Amino acid sequence: MKVSCTKNDLLNSVNIVLKAVSSRTTLPILECILLETDQNALKLTGNDLELGIESTIPATVEKSGCIALEAKIFSEIVRKLPEDEVKITVDANLMATIKCANSEFKISAQSGADFPELPKIERDKSITLKQSTLKDMIRQTIFSVATEETRPILTGELIQIKNGALHMVSVDGYRVSYRKTPLSVENEENEVVVPGKTLGEISKIFSSEEEDQVSIYFTDKHILFDLGDSTVVSRLLEGEFLKYENSFSEDYETRITVDRKALLMSIERAALISREGKKNPIKMEMDSDRLVITSNTELGTAHEELPVNLEGKDLMIAFNPKYLIDALKVIDDDEVAILFMSSLNPCIIQPVNGNEYKYLILPIRLNV
Amino acid sequence: MKVSCTKNDLLNSVNIVLKAVSSRTTLPILECILLETDQNALKLTGNDLELGIESTIPATVEKSGCIALEAKIFSEIVRKLPEDEVKITVDANLMATIKCANSEFKISAQSGADFPELPKIERDKSITLKQSTLKDMIRQTIFSVATEETRPILTGELIQIKNGALHMVSVDGYRVSYRKTPLSVENEENEVVVPGKTLGEISKIFSSEEEDQVSIYFTDKHILFDLGDSTVVSRLLEGEFLKYENSFSEDYETRITVDRKALLMSIERAALISREGKKNPIKMEMDSDRLVITSNTELGTAHEELPVNLEGKDLMIAFNPKYLIDALKVIDDDEVAILFMSSLNPCIIQPVNGNEYKYLILPIRLNV
Repeated sequence: MKVSCTKNDLLNSVNIVLKAVSSRTTLPILECILLETDQNALKLTGNDLELGIESTIPATVEKSGCIALEAKIFSEIVRKLPEDEVKITVDANLMATIKCANSEFKISAQSGADFPELPKIERDKSITLKQSTLKDMIRQTIFSVATEETRPILTGELIQIKNGALHMVSVDGYRVSYRKTPLSVENEENEVVVPGKTLGEISKIFSSEEEDQVSIYFTDKHILFDLGDSTVVSRLLEGEFLKYENSFSEDYETRITVDRKALLMSIERAALISREGKKNPIKMEMDSDRLVITSNTELGTAHEELPVNLEGKDLMIAFNPKYLIDALKVIDDDEVAILFMSSLNPCIIQPVNGNEYKYLILPIRLNV
Repeated sequence: MKVSCTKNDLLNSVNIVLKAVSSRTTLPILECILLETDQNALKLTGNDLELGIESTIPATVEKSGCIALEAKIFSEIVRKLPEDEVKITVDANLMATIKCANSEFKISAQSGADFPELPKIERDKSITLKQSTLKDMIRQTIFSVATEETRPILTGELIQIKNGALHMVSVDGYRVSYRKTPLSVENEENEVVVPGKTLGEISKIFSSEEEDQVSIYFTDKHILFDLGDSTVVSRLLEGEFLKYENSFSEDYETRITVDRKALLMSIERAALISREGKKNPIKMEMDSDRLVITSNTELGTAHEELPVNLEGKDLMIAFNPKYLIDALKVIDDDEVAILFMSSLNPCIIQPVNGNEYKYLILPIRLNV
């Protein structure tokens, strides 16, 4: 192999595919990045068998080839190279030479033939949306993906195409995050469960350009995200996801509207006193125009007051403050509405305007 | 006690004294911040018995007092308070109430009488210089303070007042960092050894204002830094420091001048290949106009070339790359001179212009 490209293209591409490189694995080839020449292009691939990422950059190919380089040392070298043209040559003994200005590295390569191919995805059923929108949807839901493996299906997010919209849902047993966004063309109904890890990694490589799009393709076993220069393929999770639709009832006995940021700050302060573990809830008491938040532990007490608009009954209810904070941090709107049925039923948090985001959270039973 | 001040003053002050609060100690009172009222002022103190910091802010004192609050929870509360006036009240049962806008916290306090006083320092022998200069001097020397406790005196830096200048020196057995700065007034000769930890913490609280000064007072056992609103008192280390003066000879057999940043980048790249431990040196070969840096380990090889001006003999020498990198990072000048005697003697790195900074480093013997 003999190929050259710019340092910046190469670094950019290495940083993208690194997100799919295993750091600890029993299969050493998975700790490598695959380099494969194409016509006027160099394709890099990382693959941990669950998640695979390909990224293609312009290159001058003097001699085609396909080899694998240990990702850690290769990425460190590329990161430190001067900003110049990089020449990569691999000889018959699989010795790779990386040359750039007055720097030259030699490291040993492995045959590309041993690198596991990415699954071939038939590009059939697909949807297209802005990368920035999908990034937002992930940000607003990923924090309530289950981390425990007791119900493996909940370590992923449900992605539904239904009624002209894309819906994303995550559930960890204590709360449900829901976000939808309308799709510009009518699409066939579909639903899959994507590992939380895949969504976390992919949201890091989404472009910040307002106009950049991502196309998503589905098969029974896999999902493929096409970002233009990069392609991400992930395994899907198998199993039955929670039926979330009925959880988000519009009924309430008490409804408050409140300034999101003021509420967030008050809960964060009250949470300081309950930091000693999840067993210390914060208590919320609300009447017609006032919400009082209190926390009381061996550390001391906190007392917070803030103005609200209340419709319906006065209420006292208690929550794990972390679960409230998580949601209030990802909502972009200035004002939120919170809907309650009773102190024993879940409440629903949503922006006052719009129905694209909803969050459900279970209360903690107070020992009164 | 009943006192009020602004949230921003209080937070600033808490952040300063926190640097002297013990996180792990057998004496729980040392995990506290002492709050002491003065006339129209509130004084905060942290003290871990080696290092003590006082910081004073303007305050309205309605009732004087002196109490200690657990530093972790108190600092977390102050950090999260709204930007408003903060009222601190402590009742006869040592219950402290912290009020700010619509937030109110109650945490228990301890009697200030149990808090260890800072040593009384007689303000006699002193020098004054810019905070920014002392911060620079610390940055350029602190990295070669010994971390191992085999020779406790070397875990500190030598501070000398001699010949109208302030000199700072640190030594860790492999290298010596030296920095001096002229003093504007003639001062009595003096020398003390200050714990590296003290210098590390104090350099974080130095102001970035160009004109802010620090006065330094010495006794046999202590050093005091007066920053205006804050005072830092530290124990000195006892013992004989290394006689460093003769190490920095001006003699050489080989002298090169080289672009500092280019050399730093080349060494950082070559070090990638020798990362597997200190036993892998980088090799430097220099002749009249060229420096070749190589590294060769089981990971591969690196080869770097860069232009230099050489006076004297050609030379081959090897170093632990980290020790070169540390010095090249803290020198501010564009060009450095490196003086060698032989491949077995230490070399000296210094800016081409000026003699305020010098760095000595021992080579690694090559098995040729």
